[in-house]
Amino acid sequence: MKNIRTDLAVEAHELSKKQAKNATQIDGVISSVEEADGIGITRVEITNENGSKALGKAIGSYVTIDAPDLKYSLDVYEKVCNIIADEIRGMANIKSDSLTLVVGLGNRDITPDALGTSVVSKLLVTHHIKQNMSDLLGDNISGVCAIAPGVLGTTGIETADIIKAVTERVKPQLIIAVDALAAADIQRVSTTIQISDTGIQPGAGVGNNREGLNEKNTGVKVIAIGMPTVIDASTISKVEIPEELAPLMVTTKDIDLVIERASKAVANGINLALHQNMTLRDVECYVG
Amino acid sequence: MKNIRTDLAVEAHELSKKQAKNATQIDGVISSVEEADGIGITRVEITNENGSKALGKAIGSYVTIDAPDLKYSLDVYEKVCNIIADEIRGMANIKSDSLTLVVGLGNRDITPDALGTSVVSKLLVTHHIKQNMSDLLGDNISGVCAIAPGVLGTTGIETADIIKAVTERVKPQLIIAVDALAAADIQRVSTTIQISDTGIQPGAGVGNNREGLNEKNTGVKVIAIGMPTVIDASTISKVEIPEELAPLMVTTKDIDLVIERASKAVANGINLALHQNMTLRDVECYVG
Amino acid sequence: MKNIRTDLAVEAHELSKKQAKNATQIDGVISSVEEADGIGITRVEITNENGSKALGKAIGSYVTIDAPDLKYSLDVYEKVCNIIADEIRGMANIKSDSLTLVVGLGNRDITPDALGTSVVSKLLVTHHIKQNMSDLLGDNISGVCAIAPGVLGTTGIETADIIKAVTERVKPQLIIAVDALAAADIQRVSTTIQISDTGIQPGAGVGNNREGLNEKNTGVKVIAIGMPTVIDASTISKVEIPEELAPLMVTTKDIDLVIERASKAVANGINLALHQNMTLRDVECYVG
Amino acid sequence: MKNIRTDLAVEAHELSKKQAKNATQIDGVISSVEEADGIGITRVEITNENGSKALGKAIGSYVTIDAPDLKYSLDVYEKVCNIIADEIRGMANIKSDSLTLVVGLGNRDITPDALGTSVVSKLLVTHHIKQNMSDLLGDNISGVCAIAPGVLGTTGIETADIIKAVTERVKPQLIIAVDALAAADIQRVSTTIQISDTGIQPGAGVGNNREGLNEKNTGVKVIAIGMPTVIDASTISKVEIPEELAPLMVTTKDIDLVIERASKAVANGINLALHQNMTLRDVECYVG
Repeated sequence: MKNIRTDLAVEAHELSKKQAKNATQIDGVISSVEEADGIGITRVEITNENGSKALGKAIGSYVTIDAPDLKYSLDVYEKVCNIIADEIRGMANIKSDSLTLVVGLGNRDITPDALGTSVVSKLLVTHHIKQNMSDLLGDNISGVCAIAPGVLGTTGIETADIIKAVTERVKPQLIIAVDALAAADIQRVSTTIQISDTGIQPGAGVGNNREGLNEKNTGVKVIAIGMPTVIDASTISKVEIPEELAPLMVTTKDIDLVIERASKAVANGINLALHQNMTLRDVECYVG
Repeated sequence: MKNIRTDLAVEAHELSKKQAKNATQIDGVISSVEEADGIGITRVEITNENGSKALGKAIGSYVTIDAPDLKYSLDVYEKVCNIIADEIRGMANIKSDSLTLVVGLGNRDITPDALGTSVVSKLLVTHHIKQNMSDLLGDNISGVCAIAPGVLGTTGIETADIIKAVTERVKPQLIIAVDALAAADIQRVSTTIQISDTGIQPGAGVGNNREGLNEKNTGVKVIAIGMPTVIDASTISKVEIPEELAPLMVTTKDIDLVIERASKAVANGINLALHQNMTLRDVECYVG
Repeated sequence: MKNIRTDLAVEAHELSKKQAKNATQIDGVISSVEEADGIGITRVEITNENGSKALGKAIGSYVTIDAPDLKYSLDVYEKVCNIIADEIRGMANIKSDSLTLVVGLGNRDITPDALGTSVVSKLLVTHHIKQNMSDLLGDNISGVCAIAPGVLGTTGIETADIIKAVTERVKPQLIIAVDALAAADIQRVSTTIQISDTGIQPGAGVGNNREGLNEKNTGVKVIAIGMPTVIDASTISKVEIPEELAPLMVTTKDIDLVIERASKAVANGINLALHQNMTLRDVECYVG
Repeated sequence: MKNIRTDLAVEAHELSKKQAKNATQIDGVISSVEEADGIGITRVEITNENGSKALGKAIGSYVTIDAPDLKYSLDVYEKVCNIIADEIRGMANIKSDSLTLVVGLGNRDITPDALGTSVVSKLLVTHHIKQNMSDLLGDNISGVCAIAPGVLGTTGIETADIIKAVTERVKPQLIIAVDALAAADIQRVSTTIQISDTGIQPGAGVGNNREGLNEKNTGVKVIAIGMPTVIDASTISKVEIPEELAPLMVTTKDIDLVIERASKAVANGINLALHQNMTLRDVECYVG
């Protein structure tokens, strides 16, 4: 796996199997695949330290949704919203008195890094309404608050520190962290969404969150949702590219459109998971 | 002062004098005016509770910079940068080992409310570099970190709570809070910058920060910098406009340009104040 | 009608009736109202010079759609899309070999003036595909091309001149021109869409198109679609505001959201009118 | 030169020399290099058909400005503005009664393709003022108008057709066309500006202008100014990437900042060339 950077457990698994020739299975890694209506769902469970080391990922569950037609098909978009909602509900016990903090990571001024901030702008936040005018809200609307903490280079503060500070004050039962990812395979860029219950790993994403974000450093379960929007230039380049010289990224020409559509799918997946009596149409009325 | 909303102490003072006919002076309010090169500087000191009540503003110093040509003249822009830097240094003792947290208030998606977030994007933040690679920085570069916490309606969290949480963790010696303001007089919109050492008052700005932000609730001195970008429709309207019906604002047609230019002046004023060995040209190299 | 500026025929009609006391009807003006599901449709026909003079509008048909819930309700949005499509088809004979030029007027950098450019970005343009790969397209997909010509202040060219030049070269059978309008009544801002077969009148809109745009100066029928996004400050102000001093506008605080939602309704109304075999869901797949 | 796409004559020249081993010189190509203060200027003259064929570029002059520090140094920025102005004046005879049409090519919604539209937004356009209020303008202010015609995929009209139509109507003596380019060498991305008197070649740029733009098809001299903002993924990739599968681009992570700074340099270079009595400071007052 030298020189190949991927934030996707499913890719790390494939690369790992390729390196260990003949190995049909790695101890500590269980995976399964299902597919329906042009959408594939791959589940990778890393169950022990050996699996964690082999894949370079934390112990836990990684669900990968492959939806090549996400940006073209409303049908696929709607299914992806519902799959995201189901997976979140499967990983966390959302009750109507729960409070969830959604964190949109990344730099809004670098388009391929703007997935997290774009998702945050499309959420149906309710925490302030529940505190003051909760009778305005129907049943099964849980508490949601959201921040886009920015990136180290523009805030001067470790992103994890901002999130920990807000978490201590607001006291959510769950954090959902959304970030753009890097993939190794071009075909995964803009088509794959990964959901895991292990949080954000150090150094993931376009913008490099140095400390990571997980239950250990926040005290709260962290579900991470991400989509690869770039391949590191070093992954595909024929020649060695010194990072100082040119911090390059490889992305798709339609990345603005991709971010808009994918962030809508992720945001509405989260909205559906947290507000269980609402339909997709309901949440779209509020947030687009 | 019924029905007239202003965040400017200088306007509150004028309105207050008008209401108290014959009154040449109000107990607890001292003001002075100077002017040079087309830029006026008005200082209003509110020295006691009587003055505070008369003007509806907290006890403290309010400096108003009137620069009608700010958006047209580079000369005026440069002078305003230097005046802002001088006033900040006059209000706070900036040393090279100080840490300042700059807070950009307001909603970046409502143009006239985007002054604070735009300023934050133009700052020379140094806190993370000082912590890890301080030898990269020259002398007299103080520590600067910055956040744009968002607004209650999109985060679900009281803005003051986010700032207090980050303040407790980062432990700055000074907060500088930047926000768009409302004025009563059309001629002040986009031409006047107010700097005060009293923090942000509850309900100021376009986006209504409900709790305010001051030394009392943060434990740290708060310098507030603002520019009126709107007049409340109720201030100028012939007819009563119910707020629920239409939350209107009156602003200038060139408000996008105004925000760009004014935020550059405020940001570089802050940059000069906090990095005392740098020239305006130096800071412009980094942040535009 | 002194000092009250409105681009809406329906408002001009009301104001005109108010001024001519006792007059229940004006010669040369016929109007009718219908309402269903919270959406009102008012038709004003100006049939002769007397009506034209009384209302200050050209002879022709003006349809006003009143949809106060457009920005909150997907039901209303869908109905408005279909009403716009029906009205366009009623005013012009769209065939699958027609070519329509859609013109997005206004300044994209002034939010309340960006309706036209935002609509243009959401159109399903087909002219280039029909010319080169027409077998890719299904039946009843007519030819659509689109430009956003900019405004005089940033191009240095009369907007009408750019449109006439492109019209001569591309030779459409129909022009649909979209622009932001000014209203007299606060309640119409962001809630009313006007469609007329008379083109754009000189001086309409936020950005002032000086020559107007109509069949006479383009040689092609011009359907104009607009939504009031501002009230002129002079319309509501208690005091006289000199335009040189402060070119103010009164708009709603949520104008960014309004432009996004209204431009989607107008764009998809146009898409449905011009591509008659497509459903709203079909066009949303392509353009959002 | 198979598989290597470059819009830069200087790169085509280097690649061509490499392929023709031992060849120190190609018939029909003359080049010279000068350097001062960290800025290199390379002049490539293609003087006959042989040179044109060898380099795959039209006969004419190509000036390449290499300024690696353009985005960090105000000194370099100012020098680049002046070099661009000098080169434009050297290629065209600008008089105070000249009319120049500046065309900003590319798609404003794809950041690395937005150089042209960003330049157009920073120009000091004067054509409309000269026609109506010419006494407002000083001496040596020539006529400038500007359009951003969009791209084929969003207008449905060949870009060259829009430009030819506007040219016929406005009748400029000169066209300056600005576009983002593709380079072969990573180090040229965002650091090199090319000015040529040969116009835009078919297929250049990120957005592929299919017909090109030159004196032959417009009847007017066309100066082209461009900066590489991307490398085609196929140029650097280890593996064959099918274009249908993933229209990738390789760009720098700070491309938003690069576009902002480079477009300011190009715009102000053009402003200085066309308004010969103005200083850089003068033009910056108007356009930033």
